[in-house]
Amino acid sequence: MPQSAVSIDLERLKTLLEGVNRFGYDASTGGYNRPGFSDEDVKVRDWFAGQMVSDGLSVRRDAVLNLFGRYGPADGPCIMVGSHLDTVVKGGAWDGALGACVALECVRSMQHAGIEPTTAIEVVATSEEEGRFGGMLGSQTITGTVTPDWVSRACDADGVMLSDAMTAQGLDPDRIADAAWPADSVAAFLELHIEQGPVLEKSSVPIGIADEVSGVCYLEVELSGTANHSGTTPMDLRSDAFAGLAELSVAIPEVIADKGTEQSRITIGNVSLLPNHPHTIPGKAVFSIILRDICENHMRALREELERRAADIASRHGLDLHIDERSWLSPVKLDGAIADRLERLAASHGLPAIRMSSGAGHDAQTMQAFCPSGLIFVPSRGGISHAPEEHSDWADIEKAANLYLHALIEMSA
Amino acid sequence: MPQSAVSIDLERLKTLLEGVNRFGYDASTGGYNRPGFSDEDVKVRDWFAGQMVSDGLSVRRDAVLNLFGRYGPADGPCIMVGSHLDTVVKGGAWDGALGACVALECVRSMQHAGIEPTTAIEVVATSEEEGRFGGMLGSQTITGTVTPDWVSRACDADGVMLSDAMTAQGLDPDRIADAAWPADSVAAFLELHIEQGPVLEKSSVPIGIADEVSGVCYLEVELSGTANHSGTTPMDLRSDAFAGLAELSVAIPEVIADKGTEQSRITIGNVSLLPNHPHTIPGKAVFSIILRDICENHMRALREELERRAADIASRHGLDLHIDERSWLSPVKLDGAIADRLERLAASHGLPAIRMSSGAGHDAQTMQAFCPSGLIFVPSRGGISHAPEEHSDWADIEKAANLYLHALIEMSA
Repeated sequence: MPQSAVSIDLERLKTLLEGVNRFGYDASTGGYNRPGFSDEDVKVRDWFAGQMVSDGLSVRRDAVLNLFGRYGPADGPCIMVGSHLDTVVKGGAWDGALGACVALECVRSMQHAGIEPTTAIEVVATSEEEGRFGGMLGSQTITGTVTPDWVSRACDADGVMLSDAMTAQGLDPDRIADAAWPADSVAAFLELHIEQGPVLEKSSVPIGIADEVSGVCYLEVELSGTANHSGTTPMDLRSDAFAGLAELSVAIPEVIADKGTEQSRITIGNVSLLPNHPHTIPGKAVFSIILRDICENHMRALREELERRAADIASRHGLDLHIDERSWLSPVKLDGAIADRLERLAASHGLPAIRMSSGAGHDAQTMQAFCPSGLIFVPSRGGISHAPEEHSDWADIEKAANLYLHALIEMSA
Repeated sequence: MPQSAVSIDLERLKTLLEGVNRFGYDASTGGYNRPGFSDEDVKVRDWFAGQMVSDGLSVRRDAVLNLFGRYGPADGPCIMVGSHLDTVVKGGAWDGALGACVALECVRSMQHAGIEPTTAIEVVATSEEEGRFGGMLGSQTITGTVTPDWVSRACDADGVMLSDAMTAQGLDPDRIADAAWPADSVAAFLELHIEQGPVLEKSSVPIGIADEVSGVCYLEVELSGTANHSGTTPMDLRSDAFAGLAELSVAIPEVIADKGTEQSRITIGNVSLLPNHPHTIPGKAVFSIILRDICENHMRALREELERRAADIASRHGLDLHIDERSWLSPVKLDGAIADRLERLAASHGLPAIRMSSGAGHDAQTMQAFCPSGLIFVPSRGGISHAPEEHSDWADIEKAANLYLHALIEMSA
């Protein structure tokens, strides 16, 4: 059988994903709970390690429980393939787990077809990608971008320190820095992930080739007015913090039309009013604005336009305005040569695919600063993720996994 | 001294209000805590009763701790005067307490001037006006509009049953119905209260003569969309529940311009988003709309217009809409003859006053269904109430209290 006719074993892949998802399943919600460094997160890695050992891979874990299984030459740079095994709380069955399973299935398919790689393949199941302690800890550990200062301060939403969560699992947080891979030890990184958005589904295309990842700006905005009686205060004598927030929200489409692109996303997701009482005009509104674009200049322009409009609205409503930039992550261009290779292979194998950007963050963007990286998406039904309703169709997954397999065969040859 | 030259003793009134406000003061917030049936609420009534006993009034309490002090003939209908002594939690020094103190000060002024009323005067300190258990329980008890069914179900925000709170203070909730006053036993009711709004201050007028009280409609609205990822979901593929809410909020001035009056008030004060996470498009928004007007037809038209626009917005944003009417209180016209009398007396005594409506609810509106009732406002600095910053100027209070005194002398003569 020519290498171009090799394909993945869909039933074997399904069985592998089912195996992963026996860990952390919560029947009461239908969701999966494998947050980073939870017991279920540790257990699923032991089970996945066992799978790779059975496959004859050389299996190791590092200081943060990144799990590696090497196929091919023991020495020299590798092609690293995989995704994360941790989930958010009440997450779906596909996010991360699918990418780790597809990577191992591709190695299994190569083994089954008798294809020995010239360049070693490292299947990786990364750690704490989802953000219990900030996210992408696994890929940041591999790329050596985790600082001891950050490690000593990181804690989850319940106030549990990262160092305590690691120690409770028998891990030593002081060893994180030593777990970085040497320069040039990874020739390329390839990840498959669910899209977590509706673009592929709406386009009826089974494969997305992500060539860039949006930057993210997180603004916390506070509008302060006067919390007066809803009955006694005439409409024209109010300083209603919520009315100001609402006006800013309604302006978002105009802000994007004026200063953004089709890739711009601006979201107000968290809103807290004070006193938040039905009969009292809101005296204060504290809310988040998440701003994303694939172009940093557009991000800056969008931010400036939002600030300009917020100041104008605050002035007209008699509100005080305070904007705090909580974080700014620049957009990342993934490796163009890998994206081109994926596009060419998709075309030559008759696999429908489109180039697209990623609105969500992934290990691939962390890895891109370290080695050429590529990212393949499969459609998410209804664009839903981080919820029990998360779903991807096996027919789509099979196509995307075969593209992944062909790329891996070619890159490791 | 002619009766028209009698005036209140401002220093005596200040001392009386200071006495009331020794109960429930919280130095940590600067606010006052005398919620209905709290220990401080019971204690302040004991102290106020002692004041009235010292003044030679005939003092009684009823089943809900309404406190009465009668001056003048033991038999026959009375002119009832006063306001409430309970406060919200962290309330101000003036709300309710000032009206009870002014009523007693007017009786003291009459005594001091040797004016014996032909019609008895009942000073009243009403109970639970502020709404720990719903509000206006004192005036509703006097007017016989409290039902045993309601009493058995009423509870506060912490889940404490009204019946338990009363029993803890040695009161018998089964006796509430018997506490109703007989028909025609109250010839008129007169209340002085802080405005709780900015109208008088903005008009630089020390006295407001309220001739009507706004009706209140409380709608709870639920908009349901899809809680998707803020990065992966393009702007045009969102069903953002908060974006829908914001559009409805921004439409409020238009709704009032189309269907309302200068007396219309529409407030969105309570907002709850799900999941309320910065990186997730809000899948659900549950919020309150408080709609007030002095005309019931306008209230209906405003409600219909809000519903029409909410349905349109929901349809455009792909949201499900559910509107629940939590309560509907009709507007109340206070007694026109009393308002005319107050206006005439203000003019003849050179006291600047304007007719106005009340946007807040007061015992006077409950009493109006039972006897002719009048309501006098004093300016609230910045329109602020239900907060430690609540303030009224003594110079204004003196003028309003003197108008109150002249009306009382005339009505009880």
